[in-house]
Amino acid sequence: MELQKFNNRNVYISSSAKIGKNVKIGDNTTIYDNVVIGDNTIICNDCVIGEPLNNYYSDIDNYKNPETIIGNDSLIRSHTIIYAGNKMGDNFQCGHRVTIREYTIFGKNCSLGTLDDIQGYSEFGDYCRLHSNVHIGQKSKLGNFVFIYPYVIFTNDPTPPSDICVGPIVGDFSQIATGSILLPGVKVGKHCLVGAGSVLGKDIEDFQLAVGIPAKVVKDVREVIDRETGENHYPWPYRFSRNMPWCEDGFDNWNKNNNNQ
Amino acid sequence: MELQKFNNRNVYISSSAKIGKNVKIGDNTTIYDNVVIGDNTIICNDCVIGEPLNNYYSDIDNYKNPETIIGNDSLIRSHTIIYAGNKMGDNFQCGHRVTIREYTIFGKNCSLGTLDDIQGYSEFGDYCRLHSNVHIGQKSKLGNFVFIYPYVIFTNDPTPPSDICVGPIVGDFSQIATGSILLPGVKVGKHCLVGAGSVLGKDIEDFQLAVGIPAKVVKDVREVIDRETGENHYPWPYRFSRNMPWCEDGFDNWNKNNNNQ
Amino acid sequence: MELQKFNNRNVYISSSAKIGKNVKIGDNTTIYDNVVIGDNTIICNDCVIGEPLNNYYSDIDNYKNPETIIGNDSLIRSHTIIYAGNKMGDNFQCGHRVTIREYTIFGKNCSLGTLDDIQGYSEFGDYCRLHSNVHIGQKSKLGNFVFIYPYVIFTNDPTPPSDICVGPIVGDFSQIATGSILLPGVKVGKHCLVGAGSVLGKDIEDFQLAVGIPAKVVKDVREVIDRETGENHYPWPYRFSRNMPWCEDGFDNWNKNNNNQ
Repeated sequence: MELQKFNNRNVYISSSAKIGKNVKIGDNTTIYDNVVIGDNTIICNDCVIGEPLNNYYSDIDNYKNPETIIGNDSLIRSHTIIYAGNKMGDNFQCGHRVTIREYTIFGKNCSLGTLDDIQGYSEFGDYCRLHSNVHIGQKSKLGNFVFIYPYVIFTNDPTPPSDICVGPIVGDFSQIATGSILLPGVKVGKHCLVGAGSVLGKDIEDFQLAVGIPAKVVKDVREVIDRETGENHYPWPYRFSRNMPWCEDGFDNWNKNNNNQ
Repeated sequence: MELQKFNNRNVYISSSAKIGKNVKIGDNTTIYDNVVIGDNTIICNDCVIGEPLNNYYSDIDNYKNPETIIGNDSLIRSHTIIYAGNKMGDNFQCGHRVTIREYTIFGKNCSLGTLDDIQGYSEFGDYCRLHSNVHIGQKSKLGNFVFIYPYVIFTNDPTPPSDICVGPIVGDFSQIATGSILLPGVKVGKHCLVGAGSVLGKDIEDFQLAVGIPAKVVKDVREVIDRETGENHYPWPYRFSRNMPWCEDGFDNWNKNNNNQ
Repeated sequence: MELQKFNNRNVYISSSAKIGKNVKIGDNTTIYDNVVIGDNTIICNDCVIGEPLNNYYSDIDNYKNPETIIGNDSLIRSHTIIYAGNKMGDNFQCGHRVTIREYTIFGKNCSLGTLDDIQGYSEFGDYCRLHSNVHIGQKSKLGNFVFIYPYVIFTNDPTPPSDICVGPIVGDFSQIATGSILLPGVKVGKHCLVGAGSVLGKDIEDFQLAVGIPAKVVKDVREVIDRETGENHYPWPYRFSRNMPWCEDGFDNWNKNNNNQ
């Protein structure tokens, strides 16, 4: 049939961009200088990849766009803006209207949701999954398998306004539920759960469940019972494996083979 | 005067789309396969109607776009993305940058606000009105005359992450105020009010007002006094009729003629 | 080097627009009737400036676009929609995907963040700074040097739904932290701080710090100690001067010279 989205209408690709094999670029998309796109990656319509940094506007004549790398097998949905200087690992996926500012590093197999606003200068491990409309302030750091739900906000200024910028740090496998706010510099351990609508201002340890405003630790996540099954739900990798690397062998076997905790 | 927005610049319309009489299509808008647009409808600039579903990317050669129906007399403002498989009743209106994923059904006279993010597989009755930046998770169900205010979130995973998906259900005439979160599967009766900034995790009955985190029932909405007039404000259809079908005859007469409760 | 963003591809400028000296207009941008753009201003790609008001759709033949004024030395980042009838002072800056509805007045040196949603009919003083994803309902009024952090919501309907519209009023130098909701008509004094995740329903006086749901006054901001320095942080103009008019002379000298309080 007709290839609906890839008709090469109004596409602009800088002569200095390097496009991999079997890449598709959607209509009305712009790819600026020094962008590198991996093989088999799809960039949908109306995207901007390699958006120039702020100093472009103040010194257009001397500006040089830093390198932007999008890994192989990635899917960037429409209307997404990715600044120059970002690096996405293989199999990166994102929803519509995502904005990613400069110098953020994503591991492999990360996915972002529609309207996510990544402010730059942050680090994501592998297999991080952000739902819609998440705001990640500068200097945030996420481990592997961190899942973040809609309208969560990572902040970084402890006494606004100031020149201090300390982002939250979230450990592997932790889950930050809908509408929560992580206050500047807060540290979340591994396998934690922050409940919906919480404001977390104090560090929490591995396996802790914190809820409320201000968020308090209420129990160990391993005590949480799934209402449907009557069984423990956490650590969640024993209960959920869709698109996870343990989906075939199970979490214990995968752990053994990966020396992971 | 010059028809500012409808100059037919950079417009793409699939040959399989069916466009009604007196339809206007804005510049830079794309209409994909099997979209049906009703008479007198206006699609503004920079929109995407009939966006292909995810399996388009995994199997482009065999993909067939499901039918998308936009009713008569509708107004879709700029930068809106409507996936294939959606069905909007007549007089549908939406703000800018709205995203509506597949297989959502809207009754007649619904309106969505700027930045709304409808995740798909949901049902809306007639005359639903969503303000800006509302997130409706999959498998949500709204009755008629449900009004939702900015930054409200409907969630659907009770123990994140899991493969369970149970959306909230909201009864006719209920109002969900700014910044509230409805937790997975929660049921809201008719003529309810959920106060601003609440997290609702338990079902509430007809006419109940719930507020807080977690939300608790504090009174019957019929006891709420309007500070300006000193009179009861709810049930609100006696006090508010702009664009409502009872705007000429009043709510009681309209009810009588419609056997509505 | 190559002028990446200003190649004049798919640009539409109404013949009635007045474009200042040394203005740059990005690709895919549309400028409608009666827009006035000041000298040295940059409008990036994919923007819409002078978006017609709602009555354009109901009466296209007789519609006349009200004047829109963007000051000198401004920077409008990509995908921004600015309705007709707005007036921005000099050195206006905004992030990506900002939406500004009609008849809003901004003083000088204001900046808006990515995804901000300004509903129109509002007033901003000088040097207001909004971070990402802020929602300002109609009839809001902000003084000078008001800073607003991500996902803050200004509401205006005390008994939803109604025909009453009373926006919040925020005094000079006040800070509204991340994720807070200001309820309809609430008045915030000068030099106040509303803590993250608060719902403010009652007026607060100059220098008060309010937090919680519902927000309560917990102390005078002048008692707040910066954890890094061990010193008082507020009034913040003594501690923060980036891009502020007192950045060279200090706040006291600037105050003396400006008869400001």
